[in-house]
Amino acid sequence: MTATYASSGVNIDAGNRAVELMRDAVKSTYGPEVLAGIGAFGGLFDASALKAMRDPVLVASTDGVGTKVKLAAQAGRYESIGHDIVNHCINDILVQGARPLFFLDYIASAKIDPQMIAAVVGGIAAACREAGCALLGGETAEMPGVYQPNEFDVAGTIIGVVDRSAILPRTDQLCAGDALIGLRSSGPHTNGYSLIRTVFEGVPLDTVFPELGVPLADALLASHRSYLNLIHATRNAQHASIKALAHLTGGGFIENIPRILPDHLGAQIAVGSWPVPPLFQLIQQRGDIAAEEMYRVFNMGIGMIIIVAPENVGAVRSAIPEETFVIGQLTEGSKRVSLA
Amino acid sequence: MTATYASSGVNIDAGNRAVELMRDAVKSTYGPEVLAGIGAFGGLFDASALKAMRDPVLVASTDGVGTKVKLAAQAGRYESIGHDIVNHCINDILVQGARPLFFLDYIASAKIDPQMIAAVVGGIAAACREAGCALLGGETAEMPGVYQPNEFDVAGTIIGVVDRSAILPRTDQLCAGDALIGLRSSGPHTNGYSLIRTVFEGVPLDTVFPELGVPLADALLASHRSYLNLIHATRNAQHASIKALAHLTGGGFIENIPRILPDHLGAQIAVGSWPVPPLFQLIQQRGDIAAEEMYRVFNMGIGMIIIVAPENVGAVRSAIPEETFVIGQLTEGSKRVSLA
Repeated sequence: MTATYASSGVNIDAGNRAVELMRDAVKSTYGPEVLAGIGAFGGLFDASALKAMRDPVLVASTDGVGTKVKLAAQAGRYESIGHDIVNHCINDILVQGARPLFFLDYIASAKIDPQMIAAVVGGIAAACREAGCALLGGETAEMPGVYQPNEFDVAGTIIGVVDRSAILPRTDQLCAGDALIGLRSSGPHTNGYSLIRTVFEGVPLDTVFPELGVPLADALLASHRSYLNLIHATRNAQHASIKALAHLTGGGFIENIPRILPDHLGAQIAVGSWPVPPLFQLIQQRGDIAAEEMYRVFNMGIGMIIIVAPENVGAVRSAIPEETFVIGQLTEGSKRVSLA
Repeated sequence: MTATYASSGVNIDAGNRAVELMRDAVKSTYGPEVLAGIGAFGGLFDASALKAMRDPVLVASTDGVGTKVKLAAQAGRYESIGHDIVNHCINDILVQGARPLFFLDYIASAKIDPQMIAAVVGGIAAACREAGCALLGGETAEMPGVYQPNEFDVAGTIIGVVDRSAILPRTDQLCAGDALIGLRSSGPHTNGYSLIRTVFEGVPLDTVFPELGVPLADALLASHRSYLNLIHATRNAQHASIKALAHLTGGGFIENIPRILPDHLGAQIAVGSWPVPPLFQLIQQRGDIAAEEMYRVFNMGIGMIIIVAPENVGAVRSAIPEETFVIGQLTEGSKRVSLA
């Protein structure tokens, strides 16, 4: 045999072609802080602005978008997945009080398709631009035999910063009776997709269910929302009022809310206090899924929760330029989330 | 049908069990800078030490370990892969002059095996400890239908820091005639594994080739070396002498050396100036692989290259507490690497 790297299933040229296709999109995210980016061994980000902060704390999170990537591959829509991974990460550090500085991506598949990779990175870059976040680096990996044919995975890491005095949650201020204000999600975001795919197995993605009014692909691939600008506007107006934020990701209400609670507090969610979007109702009916399981897996129409003292509910809600919902309250109890 | 998240192939409990198993290892990497880690939406790292730096620059890199993960899965050895991903990332930012601050991992598979995940994270944590680097966060993803059965992937992101005046390469100081000093690799590190697997297809991993003297699995799964302590010791002794470092990763000599060269310089590698380890000779013979292809895919026994002025070769080499090799020099030429 005469072996080459290409004959073993790895095509360095396809990787290089992908880099060429993504170059302009990546560079469009650079501000003056980016001293070196695409092509360097490591991205360089000027952090001298941190010297002006009283007590800078870096906040970092790595995440994936779950098997939503399978639906994206099936539908041939790759750009929205780029928004998904960036916005998921932005929201994860937002709940610690941080604003994003830069992002790095990891995209892997059995075989590099330069156009597909460029589309994902295009979405990543667009979401980074919207957040004022540099796309500082990334890796595209060709992994024959590890990934299923025609499938891919995407993960991302975000680095942000917060002054120590502004870190959320303010755990010591949380108390029973505090109100939970819910912000709308744009869909299932990036969670519960293995269950969703089970429920809709065999259903063509262009099916228009009457209760959805749009093709199933549109409903299922709607991008994960970023709450960055909304929360920053609210903090600017009502900075001291926000005691905590919870991002409803994998584990839904049941597992995410306890992540920000002290041991002596729980939460009660008032089911029916906001309109559960038709997609979640459809999923529950078709799958005959128990209510508790739905709230453990999905966001049910609420992507972000703001916790405030009861007396600040009005002021905080009026600082938010969209419809919000008071969806429950903190209770005495050992981190238990109950549905009422 | 009555669907649950578990019946759709995702087991939140297995994920939680994996987190329990890895908790102590992760925490063993924390210094006083880690304000919040495992369990938080985002890890918190106190960056106030950066305020004492003249002009702090954050250096970030994301990478994977390629299809070395397939061999690890086949051999059932997961801890060494953890060392691989961390050390790969450390070396990538080391060549920019940076020391690591913290690391985040991403591990994904079709089905979460808590013991396997804990072994990978155990290796990651051990490598982080050796480097004085916090394992600040990570994500374990269960992706039925995306990954092949029994396969997994691991990616990592490292964040380090360097003072702006200490950034490498010092491109404007590089000139024709500068010497390339090579440091030994510990094996193929994390590159060329798809080709390696093709070459050894059907060969049991416990085979002992006479020229290797150890089982094939040992030779192929040797961990990627970290050059952090070696280079830092050398920089402490000969700080101004090091003009550039090149980490020989995917793309070997042919593609990695040009990444640190200005447009008007190339490099000539003196084949034979160091002993190519038997494993690479075995790969080349069994695969009937062209020499140029070998140097484009593999490190051939040299994992890191230090570039210095000819008059500093002796001092730099004697500052390094292991055998080194002068493997070539910079030449006039447009980023071309030639083998002589």
